[in-house]
Amino acid sequence: MTKFILLTITLFLFSLTILSQEQVWQETAPGVWLLKIGQEQSITLLGAAEVTPKIEALENLPDSEFPLAPEKISAEVIDGKTYLRFPLERGEEIYGLGLNFKTHNQRGRILNLHMDHYGGKDNGRSHAPVPFYVSTRGYGVLIDAARYMTVYAGTAIRVDADDPPELLDRNTDSGWQAQPYSDAVEILVPANGANVYLFGGPTMLKAVQRYNLFCGGGYLPPKWGLGFTQRVPTLYSDRDILKEVNEFEEHGFPLDFIGVEPGWHSMAYPCTFEWDSTRFPDPKGFLGSLQEKGIRANLWMNPYISPVGTLYDKVKPYSGSHTVWNGIVPDFTLEEPKALFREHFMEHHIRLGVSGYKIDEVDGFDRWIWPDVATFPSGTSAEEMRQVYGVLFQKMSSDWFREINKRTYGLVRASNAGSSSLPYVIYNDYYSHKDFITALINSSFIGVMWTPEVRSSGNAEDWLRRMQSVCFSPMAMLNAWAEGTKPWSFPEVEEQVRQVAMLRMRLLPYIYSTFAQYHFKGIPPFRAMQLVEGLSISSETEDGELNSSENPYAAYSTREVMYQYMMGKFILVAPMFAGMISREVLLPPGKWYDFYTGELAGEEEVIIIEPGLDLIPLFVKDGAILPMLKEERTRMPAAGEELSLEIRHYGEKPGVFHLYDDDGTSFDYEQGAFSWTELFVTGQGKALKPGMKVSHEGFYSYSQDPEWVFMTPK
Amino acid sequence: MTKFILLTITLFLFSLTILSQEQVWQETAPGVWLLKIGQEQSITLLGAAEVTPKIEALENLPDSEFPLAPEKISAEVIDGKTYLRFPLERGEEIYGLGLNFKTHNQRGRILNLHMDHYGGKDNGRSHAPVPFYVSTRGYGVLIDAARYMTVYAGTAIRVDADDPPELLDRNTDSGWQAQPYSDAVEILVPANGANVYLFGGPTMLKAVQRYNLFCGGGYLPPKWGLGFTQRVPTLYSDRDILKEVNEFEEHGFPLDFIGVEPGWHSMAYPCTFEWDSTRFPDPKGFLGSLQEKGIRANLWMNPYISPVGTLYDKVKPYSGSHTVWNGIVPDFTLEEPKALFREHFMEHHIRLGVSGYKIDEVDGFDRWIWPDVATFPSGTSAEEMRQVYGVLFQKMSSDWFREINKRTYGLVRASNAGSSSLPYVIYNDYYSHKDFITALINSSFIGVMWTPEVRSSGNAEDWLRRMQSVCFSPMAMLNAWAEGTKPWSFPEVEEQVRQVAMLRMRLLPYIYSTFAQYHFKGIPPFRAMQLVEGLSISSETEDGELNSSENPYAAYSTREVMYQYMMGKFILVAPMFAGMISREVLLPPGKWYDFYTGELAGEEEVIIIEPGLDLIPLFVKDGAILPMLKEERTRMPAAGEELSLEIRHYGEKPGVFHLYDDDGTSFDYEQGAFSWTELFVTGQGKALKPGMKVSHEGFYSYSQDPEWVFMTPK
Repeated sequence: MTKFILLTITLFLFSLTILSQEQVWQETAPGVWLLKIGQEQSITLLGAAEVTPKIEALENLPDSEFPLAPEKISAEVIDGKTYLRFPLERGEEIYGLGLNFKTHNQRGRILNLHMDHYGGKDNGRSHAPVPFYVSTRGYGVLIDAARYMTVYAGTAIRVDADDPPELLDRNTDSGWQAQPYSDAVEILVPANGANVYLFGGPTMLKAVQRYNLFCGGGYLPPKWGLGFTQRVPTLYSDRDILKEVNEFEEHGFPLDFIGVEPGWHSMAYPCTFEWDSTRFPDPKGFLGSLQEKGIRANLWMNPYISPVGTLYDKVKPYSGSHTVWNGIVPDFTLEEPKALFREHFMEHHIRLGVSGYKIDEVDGFDRWIWPDVATFPSGTSAEEMRQVYGVLFQKMSSDWFREINKRTYGLVRASNAGSSSLPYVIYNDYYSHKDFITALINSSFIGVMWTPEVRSSGNAEDWLRRMQSVCFSPMAMLNAWAEGTKPWSFPEVEEQVRQVAMLRMRLLPYIYSTFAQYHFKGIPPFRAMQLVEGLSISSETEDGELNSSENPYAAYSTREVMYQYMMGKFILVAPMFAGMISREVLLPPGKWYDFYTGELAGEEEVIIIEPGLDLIPLFVKDGAILPMLKEERTRMPAAGEELSLEIRHYGEKPGVFHLYDDDGTSFDYEQGAFSWTELFVTGQGKALKPGMKVSHEGFYSYSQDPEWVFMTPK
Repeated sequence: MTKFILLTITLFLFSLTILSQEQVWQETAPGVWLLKIGQEQSITLLGAAEVTPKIEALENLPDSEFPLAPEKISAEVIDGKTYLRFPLERGEEIYGLGLNFKTHNQRGRILNLHMDHYGGKDNGRSHAPVPFYVSTRGYGVLIDAARYMTVYAGTAIRVDADDPPELLDRNTDSGWQAQPYSDAVEILVPANGANVYLFGGPTMLKAVQRYNLFCGGGYLPPKWGLGFTQRVPTLYSDRDILKEVNEFEEHGFPLDFIGVEPGWHSMAYPCTFEWDSTRFPDPKGFLGSLQEKGIRANLWMNPYISPVGTLYDKVKPYSGSHTVWNGIVPDFTLEEPKALFREHFMEHHIRLGVSGYKIDEVDGFDRWIWPDVATFPSGTSAEEMRQVYGVLFQKMSSDWFREINKRTYGLVRASNAGSSSLPYVIYNDYYSHKDFITALINSSFIGVMWTPEVRSSGNAEDWLRRMQSVCFSPMAMLNAWAEGTKPWSFPEVEEQVRQVAMLRMRLLPYIYSTFAQYHFKGIPPFRAMQLVEGLSISSETEDGELNSSENPYAAYSTREVMYQYMMGKFILVAPMFAGMISREVLLPPGKWYDFYTGELAGEEEVIIIEPGLDLIPLFVKDGAILPMLKEERTRMPAAGEELSLEIRHYGEKPGVFHLYDDDGTSFDYEQGAFSWTELFVTGQGKALKPGMKVSHEGFYSYSQDPEWVFMTPK
């Protein structure tokens, strides 16, 4: 109660208002302003995610002024639709606007943000059509509306533009552009109202942090969630799975959780959510056998209920007008079907030991998901339902695990704004390794997580390159549902695959602390170079060449820094792709060192590397401190284990790392049951000296006499 | 006046009404029923086209019953959107739903009918997103709404479906389908009302005829429009163009009209619509020089007005909020800008002798056309304006030519429902020869015309194959705006290209009569095999193979009869594509003969042909009568010329052909100034005898003693 009053007072203090064309911007949280336009909508993105802003953490960010000139923002409702306009300046770039797979900077693009399986074009149809963008000028904009909104991200040009493009003749002026300069982002929301949020900076990273914190802070996975996971082929029985676990042990390969694919339901597509008694005669026994080996189970499902399942008749009154694969579609904006699902899932899965879910097919494809003409008993439109369905299921299911005070970590194919604090990683069926990395990078702008999962490969090189990438992502996963692959499917690279998986295991203290930064400060664990403070990257345009059918308007193309990202504060990851022998890497300001050798790689420059096949290129910042597990292991540590640390230092400079720890599985950290340990190196060059300071030793599971390794030769 | 009263009485007699769920279907014209749902919209597709139904011609079609069970049609307005549902039966196929480039049968597809440049996928974004479909059960459905409507063409499945799909388990039942059976077409119109029309059959062709006649009947081009047209490179001056005309004469190549591309405006992109005085110092003299050679001129333009043009200030008060390439966008739903355009275009072009326009860029692309957040002074939304803009310009400009009693024939990149009677052929920048043929075929379902224009080729074979195709299309055009190609650009096939162009010239009597059938009876001149009465074609589905990334749901694919079509009643065209040595051709019921040799090709069967490079495969129906010009010529005939005919007969059977004629350029035929000549062959086998009967000799320009050629050896 005291907390509630404090929050209210805080909110009151921040309720400074800014007037703009009779619009009232209200500072709803520190550095976060809200403008309510038109009619309040019954379904919103943040509402579906039930976000609880982390006000204290927001207060700890630097103060921010209202980041735009309010009179340059326009918002009005015309004929039942909401028209929005935000200014852009010359040279400004914008990032975000959904989970895009091919491009980063969205300025100059048009996106219809529409929940869908990614179809090969960055046109807004995506697994996470998040209507949030962040600008290189250091602010963020969120349109909180569960609609198929169209965003003209610097393409539309008004007759009365403040900064109009130059008037040129296409035929006689060489500077003529197919797409003239636009000084605004314009957005059409097909609804008679919307909530618009502005997030202050002053940097891009700070704006993203504010967004994530406003959405409740990033999710902190259980430690086991950061280990390796294998998803087994469809129709695998309990015996097949236990055999698979044994094979992992025989191969000395890490494994923390198993994904059980279709075959465990008594019917699937549509689903019953009841165990098939031939393949899983004793689910509790099966889950217990896994637990004995320290393995968790994640169950595949989609939410469409089969007529042969016991849930069907109960949920039918609370389901939509249309079927998906003959299954009914529960209306999860209502309490009744949520209660029925909770009861069923708790009884049949979670109380038996199931640790999480893979929520499939909540995105599309259009051809089988419910159509936009579907109706739902709550009155929610099909469009709104489509935009939030994945988020509704994420929130509902995450609450079940919270109820038993166990963290989960699962997969989902549809997300949206507000899901930063939800325990799900996005995946899909698209399978371009390069585009998977672009998606991983873009996920950092919009508060979602993405895994470049591995399924199968045409050759060992591709296999290894994909395995290397997925081990530097939020979920290290081999998804063998269709092809039945194993990590050792290509024996010629088995050892290299094992090594990179082991490296991920050993990096747990660093990665887990990185996720803690996501949770407590909103800093994305895997993040775009554009979010590195102090680094200024501009995408460059290149003139197009006229071709009457391929490029009839000689439209320009954009060149961007691609395929490299930060894992946490210190490690720069530059994945390699099959067929690639060398690549460019942009090193931000300061000196950077090779992760494996500690040798200087370069300083604020573009380097060209030829890393060979065995290792994924990793670069470490000068002064970096990387806490790692000393020993290789195949399971993530359980509560109560004490672990030996190897703490690496790179470069010449002193540095600090804050090592986070807690019990690794429960939500007790929310009540203060965690520790932060300051690992530090002082001095310079040859006189570097290590040290550490543990807070709350009770929640600290590592050895207090770590092995310090100074990686860079002095 | 008498006519008006007669029409009124006729309409009254047909106003039989059918009740359906309190909806009232009104027979608004013979065999055409209208249901008005929700609120009347100020902009509709048929309203933009200002259609005048050809009631008499509709009366002459066979009587039709209301073609569907009215209780199976549902229509309602929910939250400002119109929800529609029409039944489908097992085995039924549907065609139309926009100008698609890759597929014919649309059952099983989802289309968001949205005006746009074709983007490579049949998803509804197209140059003619016509919301009309025709069913193999012999009826048509039109949703007359100028909106981005979404059509679920047999994909959506209701929980309470009359004919639900079978319940199967994906993992254990081999018959499981990624896309289960759906028994309905469902449509979401994002507006609070719509007009729905049902067109009776009893055949697909009759339903299409009804649709075309309801839209005013097909357009009858001037004879010169059916000759060859060359579009010259940008920045060509008057002298360059006259030189080009001389080159055509030197090469003995047909040429009836010249397309003048950007460079004639004093500024273009945006346009002034005023002649550039350096390249065209004497427009009237230039046009006169062309006319002396029997050549017409067609002017390229887009409707976006440059600030340096005299129209700018006058039209600005009547233009939209956004610019296109710095040009303002006139609101052509208002009378004032239409009057200003009329005055300007009449004075500066048409009265000087300009014969038509190419209306470019009224479709999209999204990136430079006005955004959906644009507003217009009439209150018309950007979405509505986008859907009808091309049609508005087509209608407005066609009226200018009607005013001077001269037919025009031009090009447009955006059309929609209601444009059957408008004098424009659609084209685009997409350049797949095969897909161009698919579009040509699909155009016949939706009352538009399409040209598979030729621009350039990588090799002589592709060049010749494209030239052969375009000569069997509504407009035989080489568009050299970018590459500066000439028909003889590949000297090794110059003679074959000339021959096919000459063949088109010689076929004028047949083609012109075929267009007259379009005008008077609504029969598309170039038409899909599905519209051949008596021929039943089904597309076949093929099971898909599971691949976790390429085809994760093992979705089926559809195999269709592709790349062949009818030109008029008797000629089956089966184009060849570069790299193809042989192909299949489906011959409909009856015997079919080779056009060139008269030899039997087959009878109601699929044949495989290896036609060689020189000729485009053409097959002629048993009993066919083909009137052709006896002599080769490079210009279409002018009024007053008398022309010698060669009339060919093919096969063993007697036959009839109705040869149409008129002055070839004016609208006097609307007042009865035309002739129909019955060409007939009686008897059988060796005893076949020709004959002819001319009506209205005054309007008949051919010799009355034609040379009859019996092509098939007896």
